[in-house]
Amino acid sequence: MSLPFRDVLKDIAPYVPGKPISDVQRELGLTEVVKLASNENPYGFSPKVDKALKEAFSDIPLYPDGNATVLREKLAEKYGLKPEQFVFGAGSNEIITLIAQIFLNPGDESIFASPSFVWYDTAVKVSGGKSVIIPLKDYTHDLEAMKNAITDKTRIIWICNPNNPTGTIVTAQQLNDFLEAVPENVVVVLDEAYYEYARGEDYPETVPLLEKYPNLIILRTFSKAYGLASLRVGYGIASAEIVSFLNRIRPPFNVNTLAQVAAVAALDDEDFVRNTVNETKKGLEFLYNAFDRLNLRYVKSRANFVWVETKLPSQELFKKLLNKGVIIRPFMDNWVRITVGTHEQNRKLISAMEEVL
Amino acid sequence: MSLPFRDVLKDIAPYVPGKPISDVQRELGLTEVVKLASNENPYGFSPKVDKALKEAFSDIPLYPDGNATVLREKLAEKYGLKPEQFVFGAGSNEIITLIAQIFLNPGDESIFASPSFVWYDTAVKVSGGKSVIIPLKDYTHDLEAMKNAITDKTRIIWICNPNNPTGTIVTAQQLNDFLEAVPENVVVVLDEAYYEYARGEDYPETVPLLEKYPNLIILRTFSKAYGLASLRVGYGIASAEIVSFLNRIRPPFNVNTLAQVAAVAALDDEDFVRNTVNETKKGLEFLYNAFDRLNLRYVKSRANFVWVETKLPSQELFKKLLNKGVIIRPFMDNWVRITVGTHEQNRKLISAMEEVL
Repeated sequence: MSLPFRDVLKDIAPYVPGKPISDVQRELGLTEVVKLASNENPYGFSPKVDKALKEAFSDIPLYPDGNATVLREKLAEKYGLKPEQFVFGAGSNEIITLIAQIFLNPGDESIFASPSFVWYDTAVKVSGGKSVIIPLKDYTHDLEAMKNAITDKTRIIWICNPNNPTGTIVTAQQLNDFLEAVPENVVVVLDEAYYEYARGEDYPETVPLLEKYPNLIILRTFSKAYGLASLRVGYGIASAEIVSFLNRIRPPFNVNTLAQVAAVAALDDEDFVRNTVNETKKGLEFLYNAFDRLNLRYVKSRANFVWVETKLPSQELFKKLLNKGVIIRPFMDNWVRITVGTHEQNRKLISAMEEVL
Repeated sequence: MSLPFRDVLKDIAPYVPGKPISDVQRELGLTEVVKLASNENPYGFSPKVDKALKEAFSDIPLYPDGNATVLREKLAEKYGLKPEQFVFGAGSNEIITLIAQIFLNPGDESIFASPSFVWYDTAVKVSGGKSVIIPLKDYTHDLEAMKNAITDKTRIIWICNPNNPTGTIVTAQQLNDFLEAVPENVVVVLDEAYYEYARGEDYPETVPLLEKYPNLIILRTFSKAYGLASLRVGYGIASAEIVSFLNRIRPPFNVNTLAQVAAVAALDDEDFVRNTVNETKKGLEFLYNAFDRLNLRYVKSRANFVWVETKLPSQELFKKLLNKGVIIRPFMDNWVRITVGTHEQNRKLISAMEEVL
């Protein structure tokens, strides 16, 4: 007699992460490897973080502050919100799981785009929910189709803005129109992992929308522009009511102490983030020019990565670049997602692509 | 119209963690505070961990290795098992949640003791499962009653060994008899967070049982004897099949890089663990003697904490000791759980108790 694994697991594929540098080094015997596969910050992290981490070592044997008090108060002040409006996760993807768990009973529906961040699908399915997948239109969210997909079983709509992997945004105006049309008992999650890169006149500043739309949840992270991906800390901003339900099922010590300490220190160094964003924009321009020269189709990006259609099947290009010490992320057909690296890394990428294509 | 929160959440109380030292300092204006509330290691952590962490700082901007390759291979070698038999979590409590999620459909039953680790109940309820709670008998698991509670809806049985908060063990012989009686399609989880403290002739060495019982999952952690509670890393040992299902829903980057690095370094310093266990045993003897002198009832412990019945309601004792700068964990009635501290901390605790009782 076999073990009683749940049927819903059959439809869940394990997440395939970007290939770690150490794997490539081991497998191919390469010493110098550039990873442009996971949208990490090539400029590292603030020196303030380094100092804060070392000072926190004496607390390593103690459980983390389950309330993330210092980080919570700092963010509340930054945004002018109540401390009770923040929920913390080991990366914002943990909060995605918690959101699915507080709203989805078996059979409930949840709407998201494709291709978009793959974790929505896993979170929905683990909760026994049904994924309603709306293809992108012109590489961005088809909000009209998403709106039309709403039924009386719809509980959650996920919008990845900018969208991963295409880098496109839903504009402030488009978002406003959409939120007006969504029933107030349907939760809208705005996944803004790349917020710091995307900001600009047409990009929605969503925190002020929380008061008007209590069905809104905003997700942000320290993994991208702040350069703390390894430490695992992201956060959600929502009504105190939604946060209180998330906290009922949140593992009490889900955000480790060093992550909390690093996030607090990182918030004290806005110059670091500004510099990262500026250099990333220059990197994007460099890549656009190179792709134009190589006659490759690409989508202008509001994040720290770019969605490119190459002239080879994506897996083939991935392997060829890997052999030259550059890791990118292959998707379907000829499409790949490439993270903007440092200027030197970008040049190395383009040289490798020129040789390969 | 209000938001569609799931009905099952109504029965879930948020976890109440041990009071952090900083809270007590802030609220009571105390500078010196001893926390004996969360079963942390008062002897800190291995110096090898300190060195390894600092060397890993350059990897902070990169996502963790989602496979925990180095840690996995090290543990596989230590236990003589296959690397595919290990699953990692941000503390073993994350693995508890994942186990509930792969086996429990709404209405399925799960059996555990009370009082025991409270997270089993939350994990079961979030999955829509039904908690079947069997009171302890003589402060330890009532395996006979747990066996009799098995129905055709039972999917998981949780055994906390040693039991938190009472410190008692299920012996090797008792466990063998129990496993023989449990149907092979019911999963038995052995939560051995305090394994390193409990080892001894009568305590079951459970890894060799995995081959005979493919329905077994063993949980261990780096949060206790290894002194890495703040970093969040625990692991499960089971059949490769069970691990593969857990990995389908495990968040891909759930164990942060510094936790992985620290755990690997900690495994290289068995002397540190041995010393911690030895000093803890001396501390237990000191506390037993003091409790005898104070005429308090207590349960002999196989962990790094002790279950004591004091002469005050537990909340009252908690508050009185708090005012003297000692944090303990109050439970029901007059029962409290006290972590074994350093010898100095233990003396401070006993002085405070003598004044208060």
